[in-house]
Amino acid sequence: MLKTDDYRVKPGSRVNLKKWATRYEGDLEREKAEQRFVALRTPLNDLQERLYSEGRRSLLVVFQAMDAGGKDSTVRKVFGPVNPAGCRVTSFKAPSALERAHDFLWRVHAAAPRAGNIGVFNRSHYEDVLIARVKNLVPEKVWKKRYDHINDFERLLTDEGTAVVKFFLHITKGYQKQRLQRRLDRPDKHWKFNPEDLTERARWHEYQKAFEVALSRSSTKACPWYIVPAERRWFRNLLVRQVIVEKLRAMNPKHPDVTFDASKIVIE
Amino acid sequence: MLKTDDYRVKPGSRVNLKKWATRYEGDLEREKAEQRFVALRTPLNDLQERLYSEGRRSLLVVFQAMDAGGKDSTVRKVFGPVNPAGCRVTSFKAPSALERAHDFLWRVHAAAPRAGNIGVFNRSHYEDVLIARVKNLVPEKVWKKRYDHINDFERLLTDEGTAVVKFFLHITKGYQKQRLQRRLDRPDKHWKFNPEDLTERARWHEYQKAFEVALSRSSTKACPWYIVPAERRWFRNLLVRQVIVEKLRAMNPKHPDVTFDASKIVIE
Repeated sequence: MLKTDDYRVKPGSRVNLKKWATRYEGDLEREKAEQRFVALRTPLNDLQERLYSEGRRSLLVVFQAMDAGGKDSTVRKVFGPVNPAGCRVTSFKAPSALERAHDFLWRVHAAAPRAGNIGVFNRSHYEDVLIARVKNLVPEKVWKKRYDHINDFERLLTDEGTAVVKFFLHITKGYQKQRLQRRLDRPDKHWKFNPEDLTERARWHEYQKAFEVALSRSSTKACPWYIVPAERRWFRNLLVRQVIVEKLRAMNPKHPDVTFDASKIVIE
Repeated sequence: MLKTDDYRVKPGSRVNLKKWATRYEGDLEREKAEQRFVALRTPLNDLQERLYSEGRRSLLVVFQAMDAGGKDSTVRKVFGPVNPAGCRVTSFKAPSALERAHDFLWRVHAAAPRAGNIGVFNRSHYEDVLIARVKNLVPEKVWKKRYDHINDFERLLTDEGTAVVKFFLHITKGYQKQRLQRRLDRPDKHWKFNPEDLTERARWHEYQKAFEVALSRSSTKACPWYIVPAERRWFRNLLVRQVIVEKLRAMNPKHPDVTFDASKIVIE
């Protein structure tokens, strides 16, 4: 099995993204990885059903990446076979006027998964220490305090029954170029291309720094960040699904005890 | 192809559920049906992606049935392969204190799908003219007016861009017994069994009457009800998925026009 722990940011460590792989170059072969990915469907579905039937706890999965880093496709691939009744994806866009009229965690808190569910965040409250920091959307004295607010918020969630796991899909600037170019080359992908992505791309270095701070400051024992080498998608998919299965296994959800004796019930 | 129109409740007709099949007995063979069901995955996914990228309209799919009628499993099977980022399932349970403090459509309206999404209701506002009527949860003069409120509400949705399609999964009382017994026989299904379901079962006839009124009064041209013979699950799944694909095809969502000339963009 893959050693997922190799990809976890140890609490208190300082992340230098240049030292983290963007492309898996290990011994695991693609065909083997794809088989394992498929083999993890059954435990994932079984654990999700038990989480749902238990109805007491939930799991929050956060995805962050540079544009074209593969967030959408990872969500689709990893959670594709999960029962949609127990899995809710929230994609955070630029905040609306109503959302901006509240603190930055307000809309995020409202989207937290209910008991029994898996919640998936495509982008998240981390944007408020990424784009908000890089583009000075709020003053430094405001975003500086947000790291602590984020840690406090995530501790609240875990203390109240929501496990949290976070993935940064790590790619190079060259790989982003390929992926953006593909969106331009294929008319059926034009809708995914936003010319403003190029403005963000020009700030690549600043974003990497902002990610490094966020990953360093908010990877805790309870709510870890994983830095996923995301340029080989078959490896990315396997790693993410395996971390989630391991997290659910550690939670060990159980079908609830029932208050009736099944052998004594007669259905008329 | 299956003639889905045979299963649609014609507006203004009076439904007598005894005359509607609960078990498919036509010429289509199981193997063939399962092939078609799989073959509909690609158009379903393609249409869902275009609905999502277009980002202007949405689709609401409502499921109602007697207990053990197969709502959960239909949702899982039909929507399993759909991108979870664009599909949100809401399961309506007995209303909470907060929900009961509002009109019956309040919580339902709040769960209406956002533009670009498919919303799936597992139970719905129809409970408020089913269980509410059978068990006198509200006075007759209140539930009597709800049929019109429901039709008005659904017309609001369609006028504002949300297409609506509704499925009643039709089974016999004998079939329900089999399915409930299975939940008792299999310890891993005990959590799905609720002894109170037997109280509801005892009122089978009253529920069938309440369904007949609801189906008769609220199957409109824009928001039709389909009565699905649900005892052969392979047929049920195919019929539901095909109706949804046909509905989406009729909506004909399109990738949005882009405001840039892809050939002129250079990615630095």
